[in-house]
Amino acid sequence: MTEQQAVRTNLNIAYIGGGSRGWAWGLMSDLASEPTMSGIVKLYDINQQAAEDNAAIGNSIYDRDEVKGKWKYEAVPSLEQALQDADFIIISILPGSFAEMYSDVHLPEEYGIYQSVGDTVGPGGHVRALRTIPIYAELAEHIKQHAPHAWVINFTNPMTLCVRTLYEVFPGIKAIGCCHEVFGTQKLLAQMLKEMKGIEDVQHRTEINVNVMGINHFTWIDKASYKGIDLLPLYAEFADKYYREGYEEHHYGPWHENVFRSAHRIHFDLFKKFGVIAAAGDRHLAEFMPGYWYLKDRETIARWKFSITPVDLRIEKGEKLFQQSKRLVTGEEAFNLKKTGEETIAIMKALLGIKEFVTNVNIPNQGQLGNVKHGAVVETNAYLSLNSVRPVMAGELPSQVNSMVNRHVYNQETILRAALTKDRELGFAAFANDPLVTIAPEQAKDLYNKMLDNTKKYAPYG
Amino acid sequence: MTEQQAVRTNLNIAYIGGGSRGWAWGLMSDLASEPTMSGIVKLYDINQQAAEDNAAIGNSIYDRDEVKGKWKYEAVPSLEQALQDADFIIISILPGSFAEMYSDVHLPEEYGIYQSVGDTVGPGGHVRALRTIPIYAELAEHIKQHAPHAWVINFTNPMTLCVRTLYEVFPGIKAIGCCHEVFGTQKLLAQMLKEMKGIEDVQHRTEINVNVMGINHFTWIDKASYKGIDLLPLYAEFADKYYREGYEEHHYGPWHENVFRSAHRIHFDLFKKFGVIAAAGDRHLAEFMPGYWYLKDRETIARWKFSITPVDLRIEKGEKLFQQSKRLVTGEEAFNLKKTGEETIAIMKALLGIKEFVTNVNIPNQGQLGNVKHGAVVETNAYLSLNSVRPVMAGELPSQVNSMVNRHVYNQETILRAALTKDRELGFAAFANDPLVTIAPEQAKDLYNKMLDNTKKYAPYG
Amino acid sequence: MTEQQAVRTNLNIAYIGGGSRGWAWGLMSDLASEPTMSGIVKLYDINQQAAEDNAAIGNSIYDRDEVKGKWKYEAVPSLEQALQDADFIIISILPGSFAEMYSDVHLPEEYGIYQSVGDTVGPGGHVRALRTIPIYAELAEHIKQHAPHAWVINFTNPMTLCVRTLYEVFPGIKAIGCCHEVFGTQKLLAQMLKEMKGIEDVQHRTEINVNVMGINHFTWIDKASYKGIDLLPLYAEFADKYYREGYEEHHYGPWHENVFRSAHRIHFDLFKKFGVIAAAGDRHLAEFMPGYWYLKDRETIARWKFSITPVDLRIEKGEKLFQQSKRLVTGEEAFNLKKTGEETIAIMKALLGIKEFVTNVNIPNQGQLGNVKHGAVVETNAYLSLNSVRPVMAGELPSQVNSMVNRHVYNQETILRAALTKDRELGFAAFANDPLVTIAPEQAKDLYNKMLDNTKKYAPYG
Amino acid sequence: MTEQQAVRTNLNIAYIGGGSRGWAWGLMSDLASEPTMSGIVKLYDINQQAAEDNAAIGNSIYDRDEVKGKWKYEAVPSLEQALQDADFIIISILPGSFAEMYSDVHLPEEYGIYQSVGDTVGPGGHVRALRTIPIYAELAEHIKQHAPHAWVINFTNPMTLCVRTLYEVFPGIKAIGCCHEVFGTQKLLAQMLKEMKGIEDVQHRTEINVNVMGINHFTWIDKASYKGIDLLPLYAEFADKYYREGYEEHHYGPWHENVFRSAHRIHFDLFKKFGVIAAAGDRHLAEFMPGYWYLKDRETIARWKFSITPVDLRIEKGEKLFQQSKRLVTGEEAFNLKKTGEETIAIMKALLGIKEFVTNVNIPNQGQLGNVKHGAVVETNAYLSLNSVRPVMAGELPSQVNSMVNRHVYNQETILRAALTKDRELGFAAFANDPLVTIAPEQAKDLYNKMLDNTKKYAPYG
Repeated sequence: MTEQQAVRTNLNIAYIGGGSRGWAWGLMSDLASEPTMSGIVKLYDINQQAAEDNAAIGNSIYDRDEVKGKWKYEAVPSLEQALQDADFIIISILPGSFAEMYSDVHLPEEYGIYQSVGDTVGPGGHVRALRTIPIYAELAEHIKQHAPHAWVINFTNPMTLCVRTLYEVFPGIKAIGCCHEVFGTQKLLAQMLKEMKGIEDVQHRTEINVNVMGINHFTWIDKASYKGIDLLPLYAEFADKYYREGYEEHHYGPWHENVFRSAHRIHFDLFKKFGVIAAAGDRHLAEFMPGYWYLKDRETIARWKFSITPVDLRIEKGEKLFQQSKRLVTGEEAFNLKKTGEETIAIMKALLGIKEFVTNVNIPNQGQLGNVKHGAVVETNAYLSLNSVRPVMAGELPSQVNSMVNRHVYNQETILRAALTKDRELGFAAFANDPLVTIAPEQAKDLYNKMLDNTKKYAPYG
Repeated sequence: MTEQQAVRTNLNIAYIGGGSRGWAWGLMSDLASEPTMSGIVKLYDINQQAAEDNAAIGNSIYDRDEVKGKWKYEAVPSLEQALQDADFIIISILPGSFAEMYSDVHLPEEYGIYQSVGDTVGPGGHVRALRTIPIYAELAEHIKQHAPHAWVINFTNPMTLCVRTLYEVFPGIKAIGCCHEVFGTQKLLAQMLKEMKGIEDVQHRTEINVNVMGINHFTWIDKASYKGIDLLPLYAEFADKYYREGYEEHHYGPWHENVFRSAHRIHFDLFKKFGVIAAAGDRHLAEFMPGYWYLKDRETIARWKFSITPVDLRIEKGEKLFQQSKRLVTGEEAFNLKKTGEETIAIMKALLGIKEFVTNVNIPNQGQLGNVKHGAVVETNAYLSLNSVRPVMAGELPSQVNSMVNRHVYNQETILRAALTKDRELGFAAFANDPLVTIAPEQAKDLYNKMLDNTKKYAPYG
Repeated sequence: MTEQQAVRTNLNIAYIGGGSRGWAWGLMSDLASEPTMSGIVKLYDINQQAAEDNAAIGNSIYDRDEVKGKWKYEAVPSLEQALQDADFIIISILPGSFAEMYSDVHLPEEYGIYQSVGDTVGPGGHVRALRTIPIYAELAEHIKQHAPHAWVINFTNPMTLCVRTLYEVFPGIKAIGCCHEVFGTQKLLAQMLKEMKGIEDVQHRTEINVNVMGINHFTWIDKASYKGIDLLPLYAEFADKYYREGYEEHHYGPWHENVFRSAHRIHFDLFKKFGVIAAAGDRHLAEFMPGYWYLKDRETIARWKFSITPVDLRIEKGEKLFQQSKRLVTGEEAFNLKKTGEETIAIMKALLGIKEFVTNVNIPNQGQLGNVKHGAVVETNAYLSLNSVRPVMAGELPSQVNSMVNRHVYNQETILRAALTKDRELGFAAFANDPLVTIAPEQAKDLYNKMLDNTKKYAPYG
Repeated sequence: MTEQQAVRTNLNIAYIGGGSRGWAWGLMSDLASEPTMSGIVKLYDINQQAAEDNAAIGNSIYDRDEVKGKWKYEAVPSLEQALQDADFIIISILPGSFAEMYSDVHLPEEYGIYQSVGDTVGPGGHVRALRTIPIYAELAEHIKQHAPHAWVINFTNPMTLCVRTLYEVFPGIKAIGCCHEVFGTQKLLAQMLKEMKGIEDVQHRTEINVNVMGINHFTWIDKASYKGIDLLPLYAEFADKYYREGYEEHHYGPWHENVFRSAHRIHFDLFKKFGVIAAAGDRHLAEFMPGYWYLKDRETIARWKFSITPVDLRIEKGEKLFQQSKRLVTGEEAFNLKKTGEETIAIMKALLGIKEFVTNVNIPNQGQLGNVKHGAVVETNAYLSLNSVRPVMAGELPSQVNSMVNRHVYNQETILRAALTKDRELGFAAFANDPLVTIAPEQAKDLYNKMLDNTKKYAPYG
C-alpha cells in the first residue's frame, strides 16, 4: 500500500445555489486542479435552468488534459436529490433577488443611513437576515433528514446568521462558514512587507501567520508574523505612514475606480484607536461602527476613501455573467481554468484526512473566543483533520473591541429568535440597537416597517 | 443562654466620607433605631471640620430615650486610624468637587450631548470614573493593609467602577455596593397594585419579590410577584394605560416640579420594547441608551417627561445642608431621628449573622448573571448571612437587553484599565463608544480633552 | 383586598407512589396542618388497592376540627389521570420490590463488599439506579405531555439520578429533589450547641444556617452559624472530644439498638481529614468512600460504630405498616395527625409565592457548585419564590473533597447513559470504578452480572 | 530579502539540570542537526562538575562537518547566570537522588502497594511531587525575576505538577511540558497498520493524526487517523486479536527482557473497557487505576505482562552513563550524533516563528479539555507559532474516563497546596485518596509518615 490511499474517489458534493454564475465556475476550476479527489457534483438551484447550464459547463471540461480532478456535474430538480448521499454540501445562494437587495442597501439612505455593503449588519444586513434565516432553517431540516453526516460549507451572507441558524435548527450538523475577508488583510500585510521591508513575493495565506478573533466581517488580529518577524510593530509604522493619505495597492489601480475597494484608511484608523488589526475590508468594517464614525454622509465616506457598492452595479454585473454563461454553454466561449484563491478544496482535503491544516472558520463558540457567548458563531482559527474541525483557542478581544463585538453578537441572537418565531417587535429591538441606526426609535420603526414590506415575499411577518 | 446572643456590641465602623451632610445623618438615624448593635463610628473625611461637626451631631443624640442603638462618633484625622480594627467600612464620598461635576454634566451640552444625571455612564460618568478610580485604588490598598477582613459597603457613584476597582486592586476584599434605585421600581410596582387592583399599603421592599439582573442603574426585572400574584402581566397593562401620558405618583406632586423625578414614560417604553422591567429611575435609564433615543435635545427630554438635574441645584442644596449642619452642631436645631429606607442596618445585621436575608447588591460576577463577563461587577440578588454574601443565580438577560448591557460592561472594563494605567488613548476608545457620544470621533476627542483638562486636579493624564 | 390573597385553594397534587404507607400519611398530616392551601390529591400507585386505602385514610380526617388544610384524596387508575391539571407532582416510589433490594444490599457481601444502605452508590445504588432510571424516563415523558408546567418534587432514591433523568428526558421540567439528610446534621449541630455551650432548644432548620455543597447523601458544609456564632471552630472541638468514643444522642437511646443510627464517628473522622462538615448520616457517608476505609468488614464497621441496615428489617417494618393501614381504613385505629419535619409544605408555599425561603435542594448545576460539571444534579441552597427555584452560589468544595465528589458525579453520568441506552458494558465501567468495588475487574464483572440478573424484571439488559 | 530570514542566530538557552547524562547528549545531537538555529547553551546543575563535563562534550563537536547547528556550551555556577538573557529555558532535573527514588518506588511494597514507575501518581509520585514542588516554586521565582519572557520547556516528572507549580507561582510564565509517551502510542498505531493492513514505514509522529486528551501519562485518544483512514475501528480489531496474549513489537525483542516495556495488554483492556485509546505506556497507565486492577501483586502484574522498573537498575544505568561521560570528556570515546525523536527542536522553531506546527503539550486548561478544572495542567494538542502556544479544543473525555482523570486532577491540586503551604495533613488527604493506596487510612498514614521521613532532606514538613 502506498501514498495512493490518500486519494478519494466517488465523492459526492451537493451544491445548493448551484446555478450561480461566476462563483460556481470558480469552484469548477478549483476542483479541476486538484488530483486527489474526484466524483460528482449535484447542482441544485431554484433557477433550474441555471443549474443545468452550469452542469453543461462543468461537464465540458472533463476530458481536458490539464484537468487533474475528474468531476461529473448533474443538475437535480430537488433539494432531496441533491442531498442524497452527499459527503459535502456547499451552500452559496442569493437570498431573495436584486430587488430586495436594492431596498436593503438604498432605502435607508432616505433616512440618512448609508451602507457600504448592506449584507451583514445595519438595516440591510438585518433585513437580509430575516429573509435568509427561514431558508436556512429549512435547509437544516432537510440536511438533518437526508444528509446528517455530510460536511456543510457555507459561503452565503450574512455568514454568521446562516451558520448560526443551521446549528440552532440541527445542533448535530457539521457545518462551517468560510469567508475570504481575512485573506484580504493578509494580502495587505504582504504588501506592507514589500513596502516597508522590500520583501517580495510573500505568500499571504501560507506565510503570513495570524491569530483571528471576532465575528465574520468584523474579525481582528492581535498576533501576526512572517517567518519569525512580529508584524504588529511594523503595522504600527505602516499605519502611521499612510494614515492621512491612505494606502493604494497600485497593481489594482486607484481605489475609487473600484467600488469594492478602499484606501485602507479605516484599517489604519481602527488600529490607531484599538491597537489590534481589523481583518476585513474597510467597506465591511465601517458598517459595524456607529453610523456617525465613517458613514455619516457621502462627504465623510469620501474623506475615509472607501465606496458604497451600489446595487445597480451588481445588477449590471449579473447581466454580464448571464451573457457569458450562454456563451460557455454553447461553446462560443471556452471555459477558462483558473484557481480562485478560495480554500474550499483545501478544506475538503483536510476533512477527508488527506492533509490537515489550520485556517479561519465560522463555527459556534465553544470557548475559542473568550468572553463571547457560547453558541454564538464566531470566526477564529481551527485545526481541520479527518472528519473534525477543532477550534484553536484564540484568546480574548481587548475590552474596547469586545464591547462592539458583543453588541452585534447579541443583536444577531435577537434577530435569530425574531426570525424563527416571526416576532416583528423583537426584531425591531435589535434593529433599533444597530450602530448604523442612529435615528430616533420612532423613525427607525417607520424605516423597519417599509423595509419589511419590501421583503415580505421572503419573510412574511405579523 | 438566650436570644441575647444575637446582639453585637463594641462594633467598629469606619465611615469614609464621614463629613457628608444629609447622608451621614440618615445613617445616624438608622443606627439609632436598631437595638441589636452598638459601638463606635469613626468618621474620616478630607474635610476634617465636616467630620468633626458630624461627630458632634452624632454624639448629641446618644442619651436620648428613643435611641435604641448606642453609638459613639469620633472624627479621625487619617484613613489608617479610621480603618484600624474596623468591622465595617462605609464609603460615601464625593469624588472631586461641584466644579468638576459641573463640567461632567454640562460641558457636553456644548456638543449637543445632554445628560440627566451624568454620574454613571455618558461623558460625565466616564470622567467622574477617571477621577474616582485612583481614589478607590488607594482605598483598596489601605484596606488590604489595615482592615483586610472588614466588610466594605460602598454607596459612591459610579457604583460599578467603585466596587470593580476595589476588587481589582485587592481581590480578597469583602465589598458590596448598595443602591436604592431598585427600591424605586418596587415602589412603582406597589403603586401599580394600588392603581390597578386597589391593594393598599404594600410594603415595597419586603412584599414585592423581584429578580434583579444587570449593572447598577441599568438593572432589569424579569420576575416580580406580590403574595403569589405575578406582576409582569399587570405591569404590561399598567404600561399600556399610562404609556402616552406618563404616570404621576400623586403624593409627590407633579414630576416636573422635582428634577429628580419623572413620569415613568421611559420605564413604560423600555418595557414595551424589551419585555422586561427596567429597574432604575428614568433619568438613569435614559443615559444607558443611544443618545438619539431619549436625550437627543431638550424637546425630546420634555416629551419623555423627565428632567436633567442641573448641578447648580446640587450646589444650592449643598449650601442649605451646610447651614443646617451649623445649626445642628450648635443645637440651634434638634436632630430629627427618621429612618431612611436604606438597608445599611439590615445588611450589617445579616453579615453579623443576626438575621439572614436576600437583597440586591453589586459584586463581581461569579456566574449569577449569565452571559456577562466573570469579574465584572453586576447587580443581582444575593443571600447575606454570617460573614458571607452569596449571589442568587439570576439567569440571563434577554439578548436584546444583554446587547446594551454588555456594551457598557466592556466600556467599564476599558475605563478601569485606562484609569489604572493612566492610558488616555485607551480611555478614549471607551468614551467614543459610549451610547451618548453620538458625534464623530474627532469632535468626541475634542470634548474628551476638554473634560479631562477640567478634572486634571484629580486625574492627571499624559 | 387583604392578606387573604396569599392563600391558594383548588390546588391539584399528583402523588406518584401514592399507595406508600407511612410516607403518604406523613404528607397527609403536614397538608392538614397548613391553613393557606387546599385542594385535591390524586394518588397513583402500581398497587392500586394501596392507593385506594390511602385515599380512604386521607379523606377520613377531612372533617376533623384540628385540620386546617382541607384536602380531598382520590385514587386514580392511570398516570395520565394523576397528572392531568396538576400544580404539583410528588414522587415517592419504591423501584422494584424488597426482593431486588435484598439482592442490591446483600449479594455483594459474598464478594466481601459491605453496604450500610445500598440505595445511592456502591453496587446496590448502581443497580437500583438501573431499575429506577427507566421508570423516571417514562415519568418525564408523561409529565412533558400531560403536566409540563407542574412543579415536580422528588423524594425517591437514588435522588441524584432520579432528578438527573427527569431533566435529561424533559429539559424543560420544573423539578427539585428533596432530602432530609442535611436536617440530621443540623440536628447534630443543635445537639452540639447544647453539649458544648449549654444552649437549649435550638431550632435546627431555622436557626442553624448552613452552606450546603455536594451531591445527595454526600453533601458538605463549609460555613455554619447560629445567631452570629461561627460553628466550625466549635465543631472542631466537638469532633476532638468525641472522636474516639463517638457521640450518642441520648434521647434516642444507644446507637447500636437502631440500625438507622450511628455514633457519628465517621462524621468526626471526615472532619478531621478534610476540614469541612460532612452533612449526611454516617451510614450514607461510608458508602461514598473507598471500601477499605469504613466498610472493609464487619469488625471495621463495628469499630466505626454504625450499622448495616438489613433488608429483612425493612420487610418486617413494611408488614407492620400494612397491618396498620388495614386498621386505619376500617377505623379500628384513628389517624394520628403529627408534623413530620419534612419541608414539602414550605416548598409548595414558596413556589406559590406565599412565603419565599432558602433551603437545600437537588437540581442541575448551573454554576452554584464550582468545579462540578454543569447539568449534573447537585445539592446546594436555593432561593424559592413564585414559580421559581434559584440556586444560591455555594462556592467550591476543597480539592481533597472534590476529588471524591467528582468521581461519583461522572460515575452517575455513566450510569445514566448506560441505563438510557441499555449499554451493559458501559454500565460496568462505572460499576468497576465505584469506591466500594474494591475487587479485581474480573470478579466485579461476575458480581455485576449476577446483580443484573436479579433485577432483570425491571431493567432488562442485552 | 530571502528565505534566510527564517533563521535565528545568537539564541540563548538556559539548561537547568544541564549536567544530566544521556538526556543532555540527546539535546546536543538534536541541536547539531538543525541548520536554522545557533547560539549558546548555558548549563546549570547542582552537580557543577557534571555541567562542566557536558560543556566540554558539547563544545567538542562544534567543528565537525556534519554539525549544521553551531552551538557553544558553557557551564555556569548559578541559576541567575543561566537565566540571564535566556530565550529558552529547558528543565530536566532529578528531584532528589536515587536514594529517595528507591524509597518512593519500593517502600510501599511493604504495605502491599506495587508501583511500576512511581514517578507520577501513587505513593511514589506523590512524595516525588512533594520534593519537586519546592524546587519548581523557586525556579518560577527566579524565572519571574531574571527571564520573565523566556519560553520554558519542562521535561521533568511529575510533569503535571512541575508545570502546575510554575504557573501557580508565576502566572505570567510562558511554560510548556513535553513528554514522549503519546509518541509511543502513535508508534503502536503505526505497528498496527503494518500488522493489520500491511502498510509499511508509517511516520508515527507526522502521519498518525491523533486527538490527545487528558493529563500527562494518563492521556487518551478518541480520534486517530492515517491518510484518511479512521484508526479507531482498526484498533478495536487489533485489541481483540491480541487481547489475551498481548502484542510484541518484535524488533524490540521480548517485552519481559526490558523493564521499560510491556505487551500492551493494559492498552487493549482499557480500550475494551472504555472505548477510547489510552495513550501512555502500560507501566504508567496501570498506576492511575485502582491498585486491585493491574498492580494487586506480582502475579497480577506478570499476568498483565508488564514490569515494575526497579530502581537498582536505574542506579546501574546511571553509573554506566557516568563512565561514558568520562570517556567522552577525555575523547576516549567519540560523541555519536544521533537524533532522539524528541520534539524540542521543532518546538523551538515553532516558537521562533520559523515553522508553525500542532503537537501535544502540557499547559493549564483554558477550556481545551472539557469538564476539567480551568487552571489544572492538561495534555492536549496545541498550535505553536511565533511566541505563542494556543491549545486546540480537544473536546471532553467520556464520563467513564473523566471520573478517573478528575480524581487525579483534584488530588494533584491538593498535593500542590499541601506542598506550597507545607501542610502535612492536607497532603495526606490526597495520599489516602490515591487509587493505588488501597489500604485503611490508619496504615496509609503510617506509610505516608515513613515516606516523608525518607525525603525530608528535600521536603521538610511539620
